[in-house]
Amino acid sequence: MDSNGLSTQLSMETLHGSLTDPAISSMNLLNELIDEYPVAISMAAGRPYEEFFDVRLIHEYIDAYCEHLRGDRKLNEAAVTRTLFQYGTTKGVIADLIARNLAEDEDIDAAPESVVVTVGAQEAMFLVLRTLRAGERDVLLAPAPTYVGLTGAALLTDTPVWPVRSGENGIDPDDLALQLKRADEQGKRVRACYVTPNFANPTGTSMDLASRHRLLEVAEAHGILLLEDNAYGLFGAERLPSLKSLDRSGSVVYIGSFAKTGMPGARVGYVVADQQVPGGGLLADQLSKLKGMLTVNTSPIAQAVIAGKLLLNGFSLVKANAREIDIYQRNLRLTLGELDRRLGAFPDVTWNTPTGGFFVTVTVPFVVDDELLERAARDHGVLFTPMHHFFGGKGGFHQLRLSISLLTPELIEEGVSRLAALITPRLP
Amino acid sequence: MDSNGLSTQLSMETLHGSLTDPAISSMNLLNELIDEYPVAISMAAGRPYEEFFDVRLIHEYIDAYCEHLRGDRKLNEAAVTRTLFQYGTTKGVIADLIARNLAEDEDIDAAPESVVVTVGAQEAMFLVLRTLRAGERDVLLAPAPTYVGLTGAALLTDTPVWPVRSGENGIDPDDLALQLKRADEQGKRVRACYVTPNFANPTGTSMDLASRHRLLEVAEAHGILLLEDNAYGLFGAERLPSLKSLDRSGSVVYIGSFAKTGMPGARVGYVVADQQVPGGGLLADQLSKLKGMLTVNTSPIAQAVIAGKLLLNGFSLVKANAREIDIYQRNLRLTLGELDRRLGAFPDVTWNTPTGGFFVTVTVPFVVDDELLERAARDHGVLFTPMHHFFGGKGGFHQLRLSISLLTPELIEEGVSRLAALITPRLP
Repeated sequence: MDSNGLSTQLSMETLHGSLTDPAISSMNLLNELIDEYPVAISMAAGRPYEEFFDVRLIHEYIDAYCEHLRGDRKLNEAAVTRTLFQYGTTKGVIADLIARNLAEDEDIDAAPESVVVTVGAQEAMFLVLRTLRAGERDVLLAPAPTYVGLTGAALLTDTPVWPVRSGENGIDPDDLALQLKRADEQGKRVRACYVTPNFANPTGTSMDLASRHRLLEVAEAHGILLLEDNAYGLFGAERLPSLKSLDRSGSVVYIGSFAKTGMPGARVGYVVADQQVPGGGLLADQLSKLKGMLTVNTSPIAQAVIAGKLLLNGFSLVKANAREIDIYQRNLRLTLGELDRRLGAFPDVTWNTPTGGFFVTVTVPFVVDDELLERAARDHGVLFTPMHHFFGGKGGFHQLRLSISLLTPELIEEGVSRLAALITPRLP
Repeated sequence: MDSNGLSTQLSMETLHGSLTDPAISSMNLLNELIDEYPVAISMAAGRPYEEFFDVRLIHEYIDAYCEHLRGDRKLNEAAVTRTLFQYGTTKGVIADLIARNLAEDEDIDAAPESVVVTVGAQEAMFLVLRTLRAGERDVLLAPAPTYVGLTGAALLTDTPVWPVRSGENGIDPDDLALQLKRADEQGKRVRACYVTPNFANPTGTSMDLASRHRLLEVAEAHGILLLEDNAYGLFGAERLPSLKSLDRSGSVVYIGSFAKTGMPGARVGYVVADQQVPGGGLLADQLSKLKGMLTVNTSPIAQAVIAGKLLLNGFSLVKANAREIDIYQRNLRLTLGELDRRLGAFPDVTWNTPTGGFFVTVTVPFVVDDELLERAARDHGVLFTPMHHFFGGKGGFHQLRLSISLLTPELIEEGVSRLAALITPRLP
C-alpha cells in the first residue's frame, strides 16, 4: 500500500455507520447554526437557566462534601483527599447520597448498590443499551419522536430502535403491546422500551397516572424492561409519581440526570438498576463492569460538586431548585401566552400546553426542515429545533420544538414575535 | 410471557458478550481480592503516588483556570461562570492548553482543533475504536501482552484484537509487518495498531529509537494508523521522543492521560487526531461526533482542575511532577535491588529492568494464576497481577506484574520479601 493508504482507510464510508446517520449529522448542523448566528434568540437549546450560576458554589459544594466525609463518614484527611484525587470505585462514591435524594424527592427506594454514577445520563443510556444489545435480533422500542441522546446511544451500539406511537398523553401502552407482538412475530427480541413520562424531550408531554399504571402492566405482562428517563420531572406545577416509584415487578431501570437539577458542568448522572441477573448479581453490577471499560469511573471531583449541592439542600433538589422551578413555570406560561397572542388567530397553527418542563411543540401547515431553520436564523433572528430531528428523519416535518429554559421574559416575547413573523406569511 | 420473563431476559447469556469475556471477569476478580485482603501489600494497583495529594490544590487549580479565563481570554464573570457550569463544547474547553503542554513536554505540534478532551484515556480509546470499527472484517492489532483498558474498549466495540509479538524492546515492527500481511491474506482489514512505546503497562518495557523509526516506516508503508498511548512517558530517567513527535506521515493518533501526571480524580484524558478524513474534516471531528452521543462533553470543572495545574506549572507536567518522577525512579531502583537481594541467587527466577514507569515483569518457572494470587494474598499478605490477564487468557502463565508507584521504601522491602517467600518454595 502507498502513502495514500491512510486517507483511503479514513474515508467516511470506511468509518462506523453511526457517523453518517442523519440523526448525528443533523444535530451537528444545529450546533453549527447556533454558532453561525450567535445573536439570534435561541429557542433551540435545552440548557438550564444561568442566572443563579456562581463559581463560588463549586468551592462550597466540594467543601461540603469533604466535611461530610470527615464528619458523617469519619474519614481522616488522607482518606478524604484520596476519595477526591485518586481513582475511585467504578459505581461511584456518592451512590448513598443519590439514594437519599431519590427517597426525598421521588419516593423511590433505591439500594445504593443498585446505583451506578455515570458521566451524565448519556453514559447511563449507552451502558444500558450496550449491556442489553447482544445480537442481531435485539431491538429497542422508543416513542416517536424521541430524545436524540437515546438515538445516539442506540447508534453507538448498533441497536435498531422501533417506534411506538406517542401522543399528548405520552407513549401509548396499547401500541407498545402491539409493537411487542409485531416484534415477536418477526423473530425480534425486544430488550427494553425507553420512556420519559414527565415533560418529555422533545414534545413536553407527560403521561397521566392511569397510563403509567397501564404501561407498567404491559411491561410486566410481557417481561420487558422500561428505561425511565426523568430529566425534567422536577419542573412541573403538579408532579406525578415516577414509573420507578410505582413499579412492583422490577420492570423499571431508572435513568437520572443532574444536568438540569444539579449542574450541567459536573456531567454527573446515574442509573438505578436493581434487577437481579441470574448468576450476575444486580444489573447495576453488569453496567458497572462495562463502565470500567468505558470511562473507568465518574470524576469524584464532579461527584463531590453534586454531593455538596445535595448535602446543603437536605437531599432535596426540589428545594434546591425552588427559584428555577418558578422561572421555568413562568417561562412556560409566558411562552404559551405569547403564542396565543401572536398566533391564536390562525387555526392552522397549533401547539400543545405542557404543564412543566422545558419544551413546547408547535404544529404548522408547512414543512419545517433545516432550510427553514436557516432562514429563520438569517432573516428573523430566531432559532428553534425542527421536530423531524427527533423522528430519525421519518416524520415530524410539520412541527418544531421550542425551548423555554434559558430565556428571559423579554427574549420570550421577542422570540415568539419573530417566530410569528416567520410563520404567518407561510400560512394558506 | 409471565412474570419470569424478565429474569429470563436478563440471564448472562442474553447480555452483551463482553460481560462474560475473561478479560473483564478477571479484572473484577482482581478488584475483589484487593477488597478482601486490604492489609496485603499491594504491588498490583497501578495508581499514582499519594503523598502530595491535597484537597486545597483542587480549589487552587479551579481558581487559576478562572483567572486565565478572565485575564488571558478576557471573559467577563458571566462567561467564566458559564464555561464551568454549563454544557460545554464537545471537544472540550482546554484543547489549547493541552496543545501548549504537548509542545512544552513532548515536542508535539498539535493544532487545538485536532484535540478531543475525553473522560480519561479510556474514553479516547473507545471513541477511536468505535469510529474505526465499521464491519465484521475490521480488526485491531496490539502487542501481547497489552493494557486491559485497550482490551475492554475492543470488547465494547466487538473489535477482534490480533496479537503482535512484543519483547524487551516493545512491539516488534517486523512481526507487525508479518501480521499485516497475514490479515490481508485472510481478508481482514486492519484498522490500527495500538502501541505504548514508553514503559508500557503491563511489561514496563520501552522501544528504542531505531525501533520507533522502523515502526513508523512499517505503518506508513502499509497505510495504517498507530494508536500511541503515552500514559507513563514522563516517568523515566531518560526520555525518548514519542512516535507522534517523529511522525511525518500522519500515521499516529496520540492518546494522552492526565491520570498519572495530572490527577486521577479529574478523569481527564485526550486524543490528538489530526488526520484528514476525506469529506469529514479531521478525524478529531468524527471522534467528537461520537463523544457527543457517549458523554456529551467532559466535565468542564474536571477540565478546569487539569488546566489549573498546567497553568501553574508553565504548561510542563515534567516540572509539575519533579518530585513524583524522583519517587518513581527511586521505587523502581529499590524494587529491582530488592528482587536481586531476595531472588538473585535463583537462576529460574528472572525479571526485566525497566528504566522508568510503574511496572516490572517477573518470570518464574511455575504457573502464576488467580489461585496463586489468592494464596499470595491469604498466606503471604502480598498482591501482584498475574500476567495472563494481559494476554486475554492466552499466555503469560509464568509471569507476574509488579507495580511500584504507590509504595514506600519500607513497603517495597517487605513486599518483595513476602513475594520471595511465596516464590522460593515453588522453585525446582
